[in-house]
Amino acid sequence: MPLEARGRVLGDSRNPAICVPLIGQSRALILEEVKIALALQPDLLEWRVDHFEEASSIDTVLELSRTLRDQGGDVPLLFTLRSAREGGAERSATETESIALIETVAGTGLFDFVDVEIASPEAEVKRLVATAHAAGVRVIGSSHDFGSTPDDEAMLARFRLAAELGADAAKLAVMPKDMSDVLRLLEVTWRARQELGVPIISMAMGSLGVVTRAFGHLFGSSLSFAAGAAASAPGQLPIEELRTLFGMVKSRIPTR
Amino acid sequence: MPLEARGRVLGDSRNPAICVPLIGQSRALILEEVKIALALQPDLLEWRVDHFEEASSIDTVLELSRTLRDQGGDVPLLFTLRSAREGGAERSATETESIALIETVAGTGLFDFVDVEIASPEAEVKRLVATAHAAGVRVIGSSHDFGSTPDDEAMLARFRLAAELGADAAKLAVMPKDMSDVLRLLEVTWRARQELGVPIISMAMGSLGVVTRAFGHLFGSSLSFAAGAAASAPGQLPIEELRTLFGMVKSRIPTR
Repeated sequence: MPLEARGRVLGDSRNPAICVPLIGQSRALILEEVKIALALQPDLLEWRVDHFEEASSIDTVLELSRTLRDQGGDVPLLFTLRSAREGGAERSATETESIALIETVAGTGLFDFVDVEIASPEAEVKRLVATAHAAGVRVIGSSHDFGSTPDDEAMLARFRLAAELGADAAKLAVMPKDMSDVLRLLEVTWRARQELGVPIISMAMGSLGVVTRAFGHLFGSSLSFAAGAAASAPGQLPIEELRTLFGMVKSRIPTR
Repeated sequence: MPLEARGRVLGDSRNPAICVPLIGQSRALILEEVKIALALQPDLLEWRVDHFEEASSIDTVLELSRTLRDQGGDVPLLFTLRSAREGGAERSATETESIALIETVAGTGLFDFVDVEIASPEAEVKRLVATAHAAGVRVIGSSHDFGSTPDDEAMLARFRLAAELGADAAKLAVMPKDMSDVLRLLEVTWRARQELGVPIISMAMGSLGVVTRAFGHLFGSSLSFAAGAAASAPGQLPIEELRTLFGMVKSRIPTR
């Protein structure tokens, strides 16, 4: 199941999509970062709004969203307000306020994707998914564990929950303590890919997990996050290195 | 447990050794291949004697062995007479004749390593190991499955058997039918690495298994085979590409 947006396939198991995050704190820094990121020709650009110092002002966020939409041209955009609980920047906003902001932005249709954390209250997730879909926006149902790698069934359950909640892609990021955890993440990715009807996005973070960012597509992950001007999570490779790796693998894999 | 020879470590989980095979059929072709291979600065050079058209002449093999030892300088050499049963070139020699040839060569001490297939009769393997050790030659106890990926316990049993037979390194090559087999090979490599006191060498062959040649060291494999002038098994990457991959990974992994 490939990841699609703007009428085209962004990534599949042969040509995984590369997403570059924007983590600037101010409008000026973000606009500078966008230029650097776009020059790297990512398949997707993610605005990590939790890092933005004016995220509590809906008007400012909407204005910058329109600017990003203009700047981005035909590059698909992802709006992500990551909670501190799942590894985002610390903010004073409540969960309800955060979800309301995501929903407002989703409703504008300015972004191609919005990220929704599946650990949020079910009713709010479902409402947010409905709002996004009504505006033609796809939802990435996400789950992050910065402390450990849950057991196999728990990881699979998170992918399933994302799909059940109506997400158009299911994302899971975990922190491995050893290479055995890395293998389990890949194994569960493979199983989820067989079982579910939505694109899977997965990664083991940190230095141990680099292999999942470079080769995860072979196990069913449709998207890999790469550092543009800066990394938003531990283990992200610079986009040029990731492209080189993808190219090396692709040249060895026959067309199917 | 790092792979060692000639008083130094050839490869470990941070800097895996790269072995380049020589598969020429004639003396002239092999000597040409050696020059190309040495220019690539491999950590180990493997003579795949089963491809040599004069392998049935012990004198010719011994003479060429001395030449390779001279040419090789301080590069460790591995002598491998792969049986057709385990993916080698077809030959008219019997198993007993083949083992006798390996034993004769091992006894000269011209090579740093000899490959011994653990599926050979136990008594002959043990005698061969004793002869090699008496001559200061290390033994790689190997097992190859070109048709499938055995179940986990069967793979682990092969690593264990190599160690039990006295081999100084345990090698297993399998053919995956999907990425789930690739993961199992890595998982078993990881387990064998924890359990056994000898270096582990493993790979899943073919295009699906490329990830194991590039990242297997992270899971406990000490050595990866790369193509020099030519590849000796499906999925081998050119040595320059493999080095680039190893370098990328290493730059992300903190010293432990």
